[in-house]
Amino acid sequence: MTPDEFRQAGYAVVDWIADYWTTLDERPVTPQDPPGAVAARLPAGPPTHGEPVEAVLADLDSLVTPGLTHWQHPGFFGFFPANTSGPSVLGDMVSSGLGVQGMLWATGPACTEMETVLLDWLADLMDLPQRFRSTGPGGGVIQDSASSATLVATLVAVHRAAAGRWRQVGVDRRYRVYTSTEGHSSVEKAARIAGLGADGVRLIEVDPDTRAMSAEALRAAIEADIAAGVTPALVVATVGTTSTTAVDPLPQIGPICAEHGVFLHVDAAYAGSAAVCPELRFGHEGLEYADSYCFDPHKWLLTGFDCDAFWVADAGELVEALTVLPEYLRNAATESGAVIDYRDWQVPLGRRFRALKLWFVLRWYGVEGLREHIRSGVALAARFADRVRADDRFELVGPHPYALVCFRLRGADEPNERLLAAVNATGRIYLTHTRVAGRHTLRLAVGAPQTTKVHVDEAWELISQAALPAAD
Amino acid sequence: MTPDEFRQAGYAVVDWIADYWTTLDERPVTPQDPPGAVAARLPAGPPTHGEPVEAVLADLDSLVTPGLTHWQHPGFFGFFPANTSGPSVLGDMVSSGLGVQGMLWATGPACTEMETVLLDWLADLMDLPQRFRSTGPGGGVIQDSASSATLVATLVAVHRAAAGRWRQVGVDRRYRVYTSTEGHSSVEKAARIAGLGADGVRLIEVDPDTRAMSAEALRAAIEADIAAGVTPALVVATVGTTSTTAVDPLPQIGPICAEHGVFLHVDAAYAGSAAVCPELRFGHEGLEYADSYCFDPHKWLLTGFDCDAFWVADAGELVEALTVLPEYLRNAATESGAVIDYRDWQVPLGRRFRALKLWFVLRWYGVEGLREHIRSGVALAARFADRVRADDRFELVGPHPYALVCFRLRGADEPNERLLAAVNATGRIYLTHTRVAGRHTLRLAVGAPQTTKVHVDEAWELISQAALPAAD
Repeated sequence: MTPDEFRQAGYAVVDWIADYWTTLDERPVTPQDPPGAVAARLPAGPPTHGEPVEAVLADLDSLVTPGLTHWQHPGFFGFFPANTSGPSVLGDMVSSGLGVQGMLWATGPACTEMETVLLDWLADLMDLPQRFRSTGPGGGVIQDSASSATLVATLVAVHRAAAGRWRQVGVDRRYRVYTSTEGHSSVEKAARIAGLGADGVRLIEVDPDTRAMSAEALRAAIEADIAAGVTPALVVATVGTTSTTAVDPLPQIGPICAEHGVFLHVDAAYAGSAAVCPELRFGHEGLEYADSYCFDPHKWLLTGFDCDAFWVADAGELVEALTVLPEYLRNAATESGAVIDYRDWQVPLGRRFRALKLWFVLRWYGVEGLREHIRSGVALAARFADRVRADDRFELVGPHPYALVCFRLRGADEPNERLLAAVNATGRIYLTHTRVAGRHTLRLAVGAPQTTKVHVDEAWELISQAALPAAD
Repeated sequence: MTPDEFRQAGYAVVDWIADYWTTLDERPVTPQDPPGAVAARLPAGPPTHGEPVEAVLADLDSLVTPGLTHWQHPGFFGFFPANTSGPSVLGDMVSSGLGVQGMLWATGPACTEMETVLLDWLADLMDLPQRFRSTGPGGGVIQDSASSATLVATLVAVHRAAAGRWRQVGVDRRYRVYTSTEGHSSVEKAARIAGLGADGVRLIEVDPDTRAMSAEALRAAIEADIAAGVTPALVVATVGTTSTTAVDPLPQIGPICAEHGVFLHVDAAYAGSAAVCPELRFGHEGLEYADSYCFDPHKWLLTGFDCDAFWVADAGELVEALTVLPEYLRNAATESGAVIDYRDWQVPLGRRFRALKLWFVLRWYGVEGLREHIRSGVALAARFADRVRADDRFELVGPHPYALVCFRLRGADEPNERLLAAVNATGRIYLTHTRVAGRHTLRLAVGAPQTTKVHVDEAWELISQAALPAAD
C-alpha cells in the first residue's frame, strides 16, 4: 500500500469510526446471535489476490459489528468501562504508523523517554508519593494490563524474599501471597504462574459492610505463617475492588508489611483514575507504604486498551529480577547505565510506543478535561443510586465511592437473575453481576464517554419496569 | 472529542503518517542525541486545559520523531524487521475505535470468533499440521509476543509434568527446560518467571557450522537428567534463531520429546512468516511433533506489533493450566462450554481486537501479495550475500536461509566493531551484531516494506567503503 493509497483508505476508515461512534446509540449493546454465528459468516480462507479496503469495510459492517458487544455504547454499564476516545485513537494511529519497537532505549529513545516523562506527569497529576517518580530510585512504566502488573510485582516480591537466589535456583514454594477475598483473580493467576500455586495464596477476610480487607486478619495470617515457618512475600491491596469498589485500608496494611519486610503492591486498576480529582484521592491514603502501584488509564481515563500505568519505588530491584541480556541486545547505551531499557520492566521483550496515546489524551483533554470526565461518571452513578435508594423494592449493596453502583431487589437471588437477563435482553443497556456475601447482586458501572443522564435515567426506567413482575 | 472533531483531526493524522512514510528515506535511521535529550525537550507536566491536535502533531515533529530509531526506514537492517503496513494501521485503527474488550467470548463474540477463524486461515496458508486447527482439539490465539508464547508453553509444560498438581501446590524445581545455546533469551526468562530459575534450563550444544541444536546432545541431556531424578518438562526448538536464523532439526528432536513425554514448543518468531511461500517451508519439517508453535506476523508479515500467532495441539490442557473464574466473569456462554474465552489462553485478562489488523493485511495483500513480500526479502538478502561472498576481505558466517545475512571482516573482532559503528554513524543504514562461536559478527536483516535493491546496494557500498581502512 503506497502512502497515497493509505491516505485515501485512511480517510475512509476515519469516517467509518466517526460514523460508528455517531450511530452507537442506535445499536443493540450486545448481540443475540448464538456462538458460531460470526465464524459461519466468514469465508474459509484469505483471498489469493488482494482486495480493496472498501470491500473490507463493507464486511466489517455486515459480518463483524453485528456480532460485537459495544463497549463504547452509552448504555454499556457492565464490568468496568474500557474507555477509548478520539485523541487516544489518534495517538495509537501514530504509534502504529511509526512501527517503533521500544524494547531498549537504543531501539527508540523517544519512545522510552516520553514514557518515563509521562508516567511522571501522571504521578504528579494524581499526587502519587514522591518515591514513584523517576527523579529518584523509582519510576513508572506502561504494562499491558493490571494482571501483568500484579505478575511483575509478584516476581519482584519473590526475588526480594529470596535475597537474590530466586533467579538462579527458582521459587521457594513456602512463599506466601496475601490479598483479600475480594482481591482480583489475577493475584491467584500470578501466584500460579510464579510457581506458588493456589496453596501459596492466603485470602484475607473482609469487613462485612465495606468489603475492605481486615488489617487485623492480615496481621494474624502473616504472623501465623511466620510461626509455621513459611515466608510472607507479597501483599496485594486493592483500591476499588472489581466486585464492589471496596478500598483496602492502606494506612493499617502498610505498617504491617513494613514491619515484616513484605512487598506491598497496590492494585487500583479501576479506581486509580479517580485520583486525577483532588476530592477523590481518599483511596490513596497510606500509598507511601507501597512498593508498587498500578492503575489502568484504559479503564476510566479515556485511553484505549492496552495502557496500565505501573510504578515501583525501587526500579533497580525490578530490573535485577527480570533482566536477561543476550549478545544481540547488547549496546553502548545499555552498558553506560544511563538509560532505561523497558524490556527489563515487563514480561515480554517487544513493546509498542504506547505513551503516544496517553500523550494525545493528556494534551487534548488537559487536566481539567480529565477531571470533568471522572466527575461526570461519579455524579451519574450517584444519580442512579438515588433512584435505587428511593425505591423500596431495591437495596443498595455497600457504598459507591466511585462510579459503580451495586444493588439488588430485596429478597431472593432468582428474581435478580431474571431482572438482569430481562434488561440485558432489551439491547438498550448492558449490566453485569457479582456476588456480595453470597447474594446475587447487580452492578451498574458508569464510564463510557458518551453516557449522559439520559442514558442513566433510561437504565433506571428499564430496570424499574422489568422489576415490576418480580415485585408482584 | 466529538465524532466530527475526530473526523477532521483523523484526516490530519492520516496525512501525517503518509507524509512520514514518504519522507522516511530522507531521515537518519537512528538519532545521535545523548540519553535524556527527548525528556529535556518535553514540558514538566500536562496542560491544565486541552490543546488542539495540530499542536500535538507539531510537537511530534519537533520533539519526538528526531529522537526515534526508524524501524520502517528502508535502511533499517537491525535485529529482525518489525513490519507495519498501511492495511495493518487501518485494521488497528478500527480496533482502537471499537474499543472492544475481548477477554471473554461474551464480551465480544466477533472479536473471539474472527481470531479463531483467522488463525485457521494462517495455519492453512502456512500448511501447518492439522493438529493446530480449531476443528479438532487444538487451536490458535494471538499473543502479544513470542516471549509470552514461550511463557505460556512453559506453564502448560509444567502443568502437564505435574499431572495437574501444579495449579494447587506450585512448581517443582526439579523440572527442566531445554533449548539450544542459540535459543532465545525468553526461554530463560520464562523459566525464571515460572519459578524454575536458571538452574532449570539446560542449554544444548549446537552444530558448529549450522548453529542448529544437536539432537544427540539433547537426548543425552534428557537421559542424564532422568537418571539423576529430575524431570524433563519442556523442549523449546527454534526455527530461525535470533542470532543467525539457524533451524533446529525437528524430525530428530520431535521423536525424543515423544519418547520421554516432554512438551515440545517450536519458536519460529521470525522465520515462521516465510512459510507462506511453499518453497520456504523446510524449517517446518517435523512440526507435527510439536505441542505448540508460534511465529510473529509483527516481524516479517506486514502486521504491526503486537501480533504473535500461537497454536497449541491441545487447547483443553492450556485452558486447564491458566483458567481462574471469579464470579464477576461468570456468564451463560462460558458455562455452556460452546465458546472460547481467550483470557484463558494468555497471561493478562484483557485483550484488544488484534485479529482486525491481521484481517486487513490478509485481505489487502492476499496470499500472493504476502508471498511477494517474503520473496523480495529473501532475494535482497541473497543479493547482499553475493556481494559479501565476492569480496575477499569479508566472510559469510553460516547459511542465510531466510532474509538475514551474517558476515564479518576476516580476522579480529575489533575492526568489525569499528565497521559497525562507522556505518551506523552515517545515519543511512542501521545494522546490529551478534557473536557466533565467540566472534563479533554483523547482522543485516532485510524486511522493512520500503527496502529495495537500491537500499541493499547502498548498504553494501557503505560497508565496503567503511571497511577500507581496516583492510589496509
